[in-house]
Amino acid sequence: VSLSGLGPDPRAQVVGTGLIGGSLGLALRRRGWTVSGVDQDEARAVRAVEIGALDRSGFDAAADIVFIATPAGAVVAAARRALAGRAVVTDVAGVKEAIVGALPHPRFVGGHPMAGSEQVGVDGADADLFVGATWVLTPTEQTDPDAYALVAGVAGQLGATAVALPPRRHDDLVAVISHVPHLTAATLMNLAADAAIEHGTLLRLAAGGFRDMTRIAAGHPGIWPDVCVENREGILEVLDGLTDSLSHVRKLVADADREGLTAWLETAREARVNLPTGGMPRDTSVELRIPVADRPAMLAEVTTLFGEMGINIADIEIAHSVEGDRGVLVLTIAERALDEASGALNARGFRHSHRRLGP
Amino acid sequence: VSLSGLGPDPRAQVVGTGLIGGSLGLALRRRGWTVSGVDQDEARAVRAVEIGALDRSGFDAAADIVFIATPAGAVVAAARRALAGRAVVTDVAGVKEAIVGALPHPRFVGGHPMAGSEQVGVDGADADLFVGATWVLTPTEQTDPDAYALVAGVAGQLGATAVALPPRRHDDLVAVISHVPHLTAATLMNLAADAAIEHGTLLRLAAGGFRDMTRIAAGHPGIWPDVCVENREGILEVLDGLTDSLSHVRKLVADADREGLTAWLETAREARVNLPTGGMPRDTSVELRIPVADRPAMLAEVTTLFGEMGINIADIEIAHSVEGDRGVLVLTIAERALDEASGALNARGFRHSHRRLGP
Repeated sequence: VSLSGLGPDPRAQVVGTGLIGGSLGLALRRRGWTVSGVDQDEARAVRAVEIGALDRSGFDAAADIVFIATPAGAVVAAARRALAGRAVVTDVAGVKEAIVGALPHPRFVGGHPMAGSEQVGVDGADADLFVGATWVLTPTEQTDPDAYALVAGVAGQLGATAVALPPRRHDDLVAVISHVPHLTAATLMNLAADAAIEHGTLLRLAAGGFRDMTRIAAGHPGIWPDVCVENREGILEVLDGLTDSLSHVRKLVADADREGLTAWLETAREARVNLPTGGMPRDTSVELRIPVADRPAMLAEVTTLFGEMGINIADIEIAHSVEGDRGVLVLTIAERALDEASGALNARGFRHSHRRLGP
Repeated sequence: VSLSGLGPDPRAQVVGTGLIGGSLGLALRRRGWTVSGVDQDEARAVRAVEIGALDRSGFDAAADIVFIATPAGAVVAAARRALAGRAVVTDVAGVKEAIVGALPHPRFVGGHPMAGSEQVGVDGADADLFVGATWVLTPTEQTDPDAYALVAGVAGQLGATAVALPPRRHDDLVAVISHVPHLTAATLMNLAADAAIEHGTLLRLAAGGFRDMTRIAAGHPGIWPDVCVENREGILEVLDGLTDSLSHVRKLVADADREGLTAWLETAREARVNLPTGGMPRDTSVELRIPVADRPAMLAEVTTLFGEMGINIADIEIAHSVEGDRGVLVLTIAERALDEASGALNARGFRHSHRRLGP
């Protein structure tokens, strides 16, 4: 550990030992920190100690930094208690303006590691959760530069890239890339369920695109009511924008405006293809698409083939037309590995196509 | 081949040798059919012969069945030409009422194999494309029962389950599970691109949920303007329903109605978790979630482990929080294999969680 201002045995306190708190503990301990943790549910803190995410449960008055990893609605109260001590205090909640506005203190630095996981609870904790992630920090005019530097330094130490944004800008951005999409997924799912209410099994016809779009709706409501309340302003603005845009699309459809529809879809295609990936620069990627029957042996053959060749698979999925017994194996690899990968696939008789992904 | 009414050497004609036409050719030839094919772009028909999707390019006046596999806008004209012969004629377009209404002929049976692919063109053709798929057929009062039986029989022969629906019912259903979700994905992507226009790289913050929701927007506009025009009525109704539902959500957010938001999300969760999968009944599935660094060797270790144990992986993906260097490996397997799989993972030190999927 070489963060300036810290002694040889840096100490961290985690408040809330769920998925994020547990992952913080695992990651910090791996880098030499001593980590204490508490949770409203004491059994969860005990479990966090068991899996190695904490050195001990309880409060550490000598902690250098306190991570508030509770649900958003509980952050302000927990942070106020922590600020009574001498540590730098940060949080990990997905909304920032309401929290940061309520905590005008030099030693509070609002934070949001964009590294959620579909897992829930401390058993889903992962020491590498923050590697490659963008970690938004929301310093204000009150923020002590040393406090900011410490939090940004820890984020970097855990493998993330710290990005500073005004709290409002953060909230507006997550409204459009997270909150409203989540609400829209739930809405599309409810619409489909209503439409199929008399013929439930007809939802069986829903193919991969619909399944992709509604996947996030399968999660427990959990944090979302809090998020919607705390980012009300940002969400309402984006919902209004979505409604306006859907009115535009409605008009294109009603007018049978093929050119307008093509332009609308083409603009979206460009934006999606160029959607930047990951928190850190990396090699240009290509997506390989290989029609396969998804027998386990076939999948293993392709993946081990690449493993033996040292080709990293950055992403893998099976794109189903329907979730049946076949699919297209979609692999993302670095562009520089394309020729080698393609040659190996051809040699094994795997027909495939590829396309370059955005940088 | 044992379809009643067919001779020992059944013959099929494919009009339009793209992805679906090529897949039909591959699948039919594998089952003993002789297949001829034509395409507006003759080079594509030649390519279809090269990859084994057709016995020959050209028209076969002696065909028992003609598959019109052109874009939706070209189906009616092509089907009329085909109906001048003596064959049963069917199509594969994603909209049905406009087409079926324009072809009131006993030997025409509207069809829509729900087995699209994200691939494009004949090189994406796959002999197993229809295995496990639902194949919607839209017979009308005019339809000759023998013609219907032949098309349904061929669908079954190719591994699909034929489901008969009124054309309007089909169109309304695909509006809600395919057409409007597609337009919404494009709209969300355009909204995000607009919001980030001054800070493009901030889209880097978009995590897995947003990427899932907008994935289909990455496709070429291709068939969509035709689809929107031909299913205008169904799409407008669903767009209006979506707008109404979003207004409801807007009110819940504006009123900070936590209970209402929880209920809305919970209803959607129930529906999504219970979304039926595939065209045919199959075993109950469980989803395994395994935090892994996505080094190729780790991926291969898990997949080959299952392969060696004979456990079929029905679905696989890496759920990224951000698309970086780590993820959660999400595998779908049959529930009966859960104990064996879980034991093997534990023995190798892979921490994991699981949840039961809907039937």
